[in-house]
Amino acid sequence: MITVNIIGSGNVATHLIATILQENEFVIQKVYARRAYMLEGLLSFSKITSRIEELEPADITIISVSDDAIAEVSSQLPYSNQFVVHTSGSSDISVIDSKNNAGVLYPLQTFSKTKKINFKEVPLCIESAKMPNLILLKKVAALLSDKVYIISSEQRRSIHVAAVYASNFVNHMYHLAHDICTEKNIPFEILMPLIQETAQKIKTLSPKDAQTGPAKRQDKKTILSHLEVINQPLQKEIYTLLTNSIIKSNV
Amino acid sequence: MITVNIIGSGNVATHLIATILQENEFVIQKVYARRAYMLEGLLSFSKITSRIEELEPADITIISVSDDAIAEVSSQLPYSNQFVVHTSGSSDISVIDSKNNAGVLYPLQTFSKTKKINFKEVPLCIESAKMPNLILLKKVAALLSDKVYIISSEQRRSIHVAAVYASNFVNHMYHLAHDICTEKNIPFEILMPLIQETAQKIKTLSPKDAQTGPAKRQDKKTILSHLEVINQPLQKEIYTLLTNSIIKSNV
Repeated sequence: MITVNIIGSGNVATHLIATILQENEFVIQKVYARRAYMLEGLLSFSKITSRIEELEPADITIISVSDDAIAEVSSQLPYSNQFVVHTSGSSDISVIDSKNNAGVLYPLQTFSKTKKINFKEVPLCIESAKMPNLILLKKVAALLSDKVYIISSEQRRSIHVAAVYASNFVNHMYHLAHDICTEKNIPFEILMPLIQETAQKIKTLSPKDAQTGPAKRQDKKTILSHLEVINQPLQKEIYTLLTNSIIKSNV
Repeated sequence: MITVNIIGSGNVATHLIATILQENEFVIQKVYARRAYMLEGLLSFSKITSRIEELEPADITIISVSDDAIAEVSSQLPYSNQFVVHTSGSSDISVIDSKNNAGVLYPLQTFSKTKKINFKEVPLCIESAKMPNLILLKKVAALLSDKVYIISSEQRRSIHVAAVYASNFVNHMYHLAHDICTEKNIPFEILMPLIQETAQKIKTLSPKDAQTGPAKRQDKKTILSHLEVINQPLQKEIYTLLTNSIIKSNV
C-alpha cells in the first residue's frame, strides 16, 4: 500500500487523481488545493483540504501546480525528510524545497479537462537523486502507466522543447491551414485524412524519410506560386522560413 | 461501364490504378507510361504501353504525371473532344491542352509507394467546366471515394497551400523534435502519444481552441528558458517566429 498526498486542482492534477483512485495499491491520504471546490465530485469531501497545514507525511507527495508555484508550495509543506515530486516538464528537480527529498514525475501528454486520456499510454518521465526514492517512484509510475522513462532534468528540459515543436507548433500549423480554408470557403474537414495520415506515417518512417512536398523536391515553381496565394506577411514569413529549413535538412 | 485511360507510373497513378482495378464499373483500356516497367505486376502486360499513340478514346483519360509534364502529355494525346483530367493539386485546369475537354481529379492525401492507403477515405477534389463532364467525373469520383468535393482551380490552389502547412510543415516539426531528441539521447518514441493526441484533438476541437503551451499562455519565462536550450540558429529563428505567430493568433 502506497500513501499519497496530491497538491493541485488543474488538468494534470485531476487526471492523476482520477487514475490513482482506480489503482488499489494506492491510498490517497489528502488532496490540497487552494481552489478546493474544483475537486468536488472527483473524490470524497473528507479527502480534500484548502489548508496545507492539514497535510500529514505520506510515502509520496505529488505537487501538480503551475511552474511558478512549485517552490513556494513545497516550502510550505508541514513536514520534512519525506519524498516530494513535481509534475512539471520545464522545472528543474531542485525547485522543490530541500527540506524534503525531491523527485519528478512528468507526464508527457497534452491534457484537457474535457477530453479523456488513457493514462496507461502516457509516457512518464521520472527522476530522483536518491536510489530508494527512485525505486519507489518507478513502482508508482509503473502502476500508473506502461511507459516509464528515467530522464534527467537536463533531458527533460529538452523533451519539453521538443514537445513544443511536436505538439504546440504542429497545432499552430493546423491553425494556419484552418485560416487559409476559412478565407476561401473550403471546409477544414477536407484536410483531416491528410493530417491523420501525416501523424500515422512517422510510426513506421523517420520524419526525415516521411518528408514530402515542394520544399523537399526543391520545386521552386510551386513554392513561388504558393507565396503568391498567401496574403498575410506573417504567414508568408513562416512559409519561407520553414521551406528553407526543409531544404537545408535534406542537403 | 466506364472506360478509362491512365497516364503515369508514380505514387498517385499506381494507387489510382490499383483502386480502379477493384471496381467492376470500370474497364481500364490502357495505361501509358514512359517508364512502363514501373507498372509490372500491377496489371496485365496487354494493358500497358510506352507509346502514347497507342491510346484510343475512352470515357475518361486520367493524366497523373508531374506538374511540369501535364501540358506536354495532354498535347500529345492522339485524340480530341474527349474528357481528360489531371490529378495535380497545384496545376490549373487550363494546363490541359484545349483539344480535349478538361477536368481535375485531385486526391488530397500523402502517398508513399510502400504504405497502403484506403482510397475510400481519400478526399477527391473535382472540377470540370462542362456540366455533362462534371456529372461523369462525380460518378467516377464517388466510385473511388466516399469523400467527393467540387472545388474550383482557385480553391484547389489554396487547399494545396493549406496542405503544405498541415502536412509538410507539420512533418518538419516532427523532424526538428526528432533532432532535439537525438542530440540529448532521448528516444523519439517518447513523443509519439503526444503527437497522435495532438492530431486526434482537432477532430473535436478547432485548432484555435486546441492550442496549448507556453506561447498560448504567454509564459515568457519558459519561452526564454527554451531559447537557451536550442543551439541551432535556424531552430531558434523558427521557435521565435512561431511563438510570435501563436501569440498574435490568440490576441
